[in-house]
Amino acid sequence: MAYTIKILTLDKTILAKKGELLADKILESGIDLSLYCQKKAVCGKCFIEILEGYLPPLDEIEDFLIQKSKLSQSHRLACRYEVKGNLVINIPPESLLQKTLILKTGIKLPLTIDPFVKKYFIELNKPELDHPYSLLSELKKHFRKKRLNVPVNLLRALPGTLKNSRFKVTTVLYDDNEALAVEPGDTTERSFGLAVDLGTTTLVVELIDLNTGKSVDTATENNSQLKYGMDIVSRISFAFQTPDNLQKLQAAILKNLSLMINLILERNQVSQDHIYEIVFAGNTTMNHLLLGIPVDTLAVSPFHAVFHRLPEFTADELGLRLNPNAKAYVVPNIKSFVGGDISAGIQATGLANRKGNHLFVDLGTNGEIVLKTQKKFVATSTAAGPAFEGMNIGSGMLALPGAIYKAEKKNRLILHTIGKEKPQGICGTGLIDLIALFLDEGKITPSGKIVGNKGPIEITEKIAISQQDVREIQLAVAAVKTGIRLICEMYRIKKEDLDEVFIAGAFGNYLNTKNAKRIGLLPDIDPEKIVYVGNSSLAGARALLLSKPARKKTESLIKKVHYISLALDPRFQKCFIDSLNFGDENSSL
Amino acid sequence: MAYTIKILTLDKTILAKKGELLADKILESGIDLSLYCQKKAVCGKCFIEILEGYLPPLDEIEDFLIQKSKLSQSHRLACRYEVKGNLVINIPPESLLQKTLILKTGIKLPLTIDPFVKKYFIELNKPELDHPYSLLSELKKHFRKKRLNVPVNLLRALPGTLKNSRFKVTTVLYDDNEALAVEPGDTTERSFGLAVDLGTTTLVVELIDLNTGKSVDTATENNSQLKYGMDIVSRISFAFQTPDNLQKLQAAILKNLSLMINLILERNQVSQDHIYEIVFAGNTTMNHLLLGIPVDTLAVSPFHAVFHRLPEFTADELGLRLNPNAKAYVVPNIKSFVGGDISAGIQATGLANRKGNHLFVDLGTNGEIVLKTQKKFVATSTAAGPAFEGMNIGSGMLALPGAIYKAEKKNRLILHTIGKEKPQGICGTGLIDLIALFLDEGKITPSGKIVGNKGPIEITEKIAISQQDVREIQLAVAAVKTGIRLICEMYRIKKEDLDEVFIAGAFGNYLNTKNAKRIGLLPDIDPEKIVYVGNSSLAGARALLLSKPARKKTESLIKKVHYISLALDPRFQKCFIDSLNFGDENSSL
Repeated sequence: MAYTIKILTLDKTILAKKGELLADKILESGIDLSLYCQKKAVCGKCFIEILEGYLPPLDEIEDFLIQKSKLSQSHRLACRYEVKGNLVINIPPESLLQKTLILKTGIKLPLTIDPFVKKYFIELNKPELDHPYSLLSELKKHFRKKRLNVPVNLLRALPGTLKNSRFKVTTVLYDDNEALAVEPGDTTERSFGLAVDLGTTTLVVELIDLNTGKSVDTATENNSQLKYGMDIVSRISFAFQTPDNLQKLQAAILKNLSLMINLILERNQVSQDHIYEIVFAGNTTMNHLLLGIPVDTLAVSPFHAVFHRLPEFTADELGLRLNPNAKAYVVPNIKSFVGGDISAGIQATGLANRKGNHLFVDLGTNGEIVLKTQKKFVATSTAAGPAFEGMNIGSGMLALPGAIYKAEKKNRLILHTIGKEKPQGICGTGLIDLIALFLDEGKITPSGKIVGNKGPIEITEKIAISQQDVREIQLAVAAVKTGIRLICEMYRIKKEDLDEVFIAGAFGNYLNTKNAKRIGLLPDIDPEKIVYVGNSSLAGARALLLSKPARKKTESLIKKVHYISLALDPRFQKCFIDSLNFGDENSSL
Repeated sequence: MAYTIKILTLDKTILAKKGELLADKILESGIDLSLYCQKKAVCGKCFIEILEGYLPPLDEIEDFLIQKSKLSQSHRLACRYEVKGNLVINIPPESLLQKTLILKTGIKLPLTIDPFVKKYFIELNKPELDHPYSLLSELKKHFRKKRLNVPVNLLRALPGTLKNSRFKVTTVLYDDNEALAVEPGDTTERSFGLAVDLGTTTLVVELIDLNTGKSVDTATENNSQLKYGMDIVSRISFAFQTPDNLQKLQAAILKNLSLMINLILERNQVSQDHIYEIVFAGNTTMNHLLLGIPVDTLAVSPFHAVFHRLPEFTADELGLRLNPNAKAYVVPNIKSFVGGDISAGIQATGLANRKGNHLFVDLGTNGEIVLKTQKKFVATSTAAGPAFEGMNIGSGMLALPGAIYKAEKKNRLILHTIGKEKPQGICGTGLIDLIALFLDEGKITPSGKIVGNKGPIEITEKIAISQQDVREIQLAVAAVKTGIRLICEMYRIKKEDLDEVFIAGAFGNYLNTKNAKRIGLLPDIDPEKIVYVGNSSLAGARALLLSKPARKKTESLIKKVHYISLALDPRFQKCFIDSLNFGDENSSL
């Protein structure tokens, strides 16, 4: 005989048989009940309120958790409640799974918060004379664990912590099998992690609340490795000049990160002890440099990495001062030239679950291109060079204050600069706008020649675009265009077959779609199909910090991404030369 | 149809069907073929020589391994050989599992060598352009591993090591799932571990060859913690006076061990890089002090430990300079007063597998007693005090040069000293001999009174035994006697039911059975049933270093050992008082 369970808060009625577990029935009905501790009755996150029906006596654990959460006495844990008759209940909003949005621009993909790091406020049994157990075994028993990894430093502090807090402590578990910390009292509200976008040019550190998934604050700095080389290739050459240089590169980024972390923690009044994990997303070279692992093999044929997926390690091994046992996770690379930043981007855009044909393009010094069709998941990379970052361009500059990031022609040429400052130079998006304008005006031919005397085209008194600059842009555009063309050709995807083109990279935020298409950087498709996703590397790092299932899925997924080496493709040279002309007209896409 | 396989070397013929794996058939027939790498064809330890019958072509791996082992071309790996017809083969002795003896005195239990640490000489594939793999993934692939833990420091060195050794390297695996080191060339012969007896008074470090199981060398030193307290109780009190003191105790033992390790490595020309694991056996307090974990809770009721079984950690975490990734293993404690030294002793004596009734007694400051019957496995401990170590005795001393360790009466009293030096004092076994002699001579009554003027009994001009000394010995003997009596009574074991009594502790080596029985320290049973096993703590540590199955078995076994707290037993006081009389006559045993 089935009983009815009326859920007032959700205006829903479900059925259950005698003896069935309420938590199971709620879940089965499609309600996202939080089972944070996996029905072990240690987290107190699945409380429901019994309004009518059998109210079993409160047991010790429920009583403790009710007091902790300041709930009324009519609350019971759904993970312990066996149905005995008809019920009318409320499910408090706190007992539902929390969700968060990962990408801040472009598309909205909600993510269920289920991090590796979980905090539990518990009361440990006190020792008794006839049962001379150990503190560690009691801790294991509480979590119903046969094995629980516990670092030695935690054991050193354990007796004091338990004594001072009268055995009421918060235990921080990692992946449900390792204790990272035991803290006195109830500190469950203070649970944080860091997501890091390890960019070649820019570093972004984001402080994230692991309970709510909310971004607390963000810090952005230039990568201080820039002084050793503006792009990846020059940093690799620097690294293998002497073994010291590799260490210099690592020390630079670690100091960078340490300062950013200190700053962000201080201004948000978050203790370093409450940071339990840091997730890094960066390209393969940046990952290697972060860990001080030689990059020589990435520079010479056959261009292989030392690792793609790193085993677990701690932030302490990098000398980063977070919780002493905080974990560090580097988003795995797909291949030598398609790194963890792209894996993160694939995660953030939900590419794996999209139906139809999708292109993901990360525009940076390397243009990484991922094509997802119904059957295939392939990635390639193309050496665009640093022109899009304003480098190797006479008046070029990084996207810093004073950079012309946007140019448009109304009656006269209007220049927009970052920070509205006096123009200092031109960054990538500004260059694209200007080239597109000059093409329209006929100042530059489709083949890239400056018409007339071939002298530089003046923009302001001090800023100009030379013939050489145009050639640099032309090469960069051709590299990306060739990459997109070849990968689509290989899998017989025509541009009209594409359902979406995701453009990632800070670059994307300011990119003028029309102009990007005008010069041929993007295929000439319906502008609505072009989605700017912003910093998908950071967004992916955030998702992989907040969701264990997402991390597991991404790890298995990226093994399936097939890497296409354009350099080995005999069509590459021809296609590249064809692509040198600005615009889309030569593309078979 | 079954084919015959004639094994000439073992004068044995076995049968196999077509397509069956030769390795499986050899194993099934009870021959201890070495399958070091678990039939993965990476170790080259299961070579057999094909004398007659099908000789398949050598494949790349076999060819590499044959060259490495300098074997003839007619050898093939049994783990890859599929039977196709009748065969005549040889099994070289190197292809059989190596065994070693663990206990050096007493009983002979052979142990199959199968350590956690295994070394493999391999040739890694070189990278190719159309397959831009990572070095790490290639390493995993070679061992057919999806997951392989690899420390970051190993990754840093990996590219250089591979390059310099042309991809021919020795990989050190731990528990088949973690790489501890990758070394250039073939270093498989150099694989060592350390077994440590972490005694309250004496430390023993033994260097062990993990390939052969042989003890290479041993170093013995006094525990330098002695200066902070002669026994466990005084060290615990010292430790909790100030937090500094705990660190002092830890620093003392770690410095001690470091010096011993340096010495033993230097005199045997073994590089610290070739030590991959260290196993410690000690009592619960010593284990805590080794790790710098507070011992306060061990001193006061309810006397609980911080841990019994430690999660995995590295020697580096203790600051011991072995291979940078060398593992450290602390033999798990049974309970607060029955530590890892006893777990090791249980392992070394093979107690778990013995039929009948067996007693294991470790005589030290604490007398630990383990009873194994057909149905029960119980342990207890009894505070014998430091008298057996010569402490709290007027002329007492540790078993150091000059100590009277043996006394006998022929025409006159003959005293034997350690190192045959001039008598300086009396150690434990000497005290037992002397008390027994004086009991026989009537100089001491069974109730412990010195007959006559009650003045001290002179042994030499400067050495004597006072009434107070006799009382100290009496208390120590009574503690052990009570422990043995109560535990046997509880499980209704009479002394004639005992099949063996194992006596452990350095003490045991010099103990005179007759005298020990005379004073009542040991039950009055057939002397042949009393087996001195020497330092079973060290022997157990050695076994647990050399055998993964032994370690796993011991870990699950000790969970089943039931701890009996004598202090809680109402019969304790009465039995203890009954036991104060020297001799066995009052014992119900």
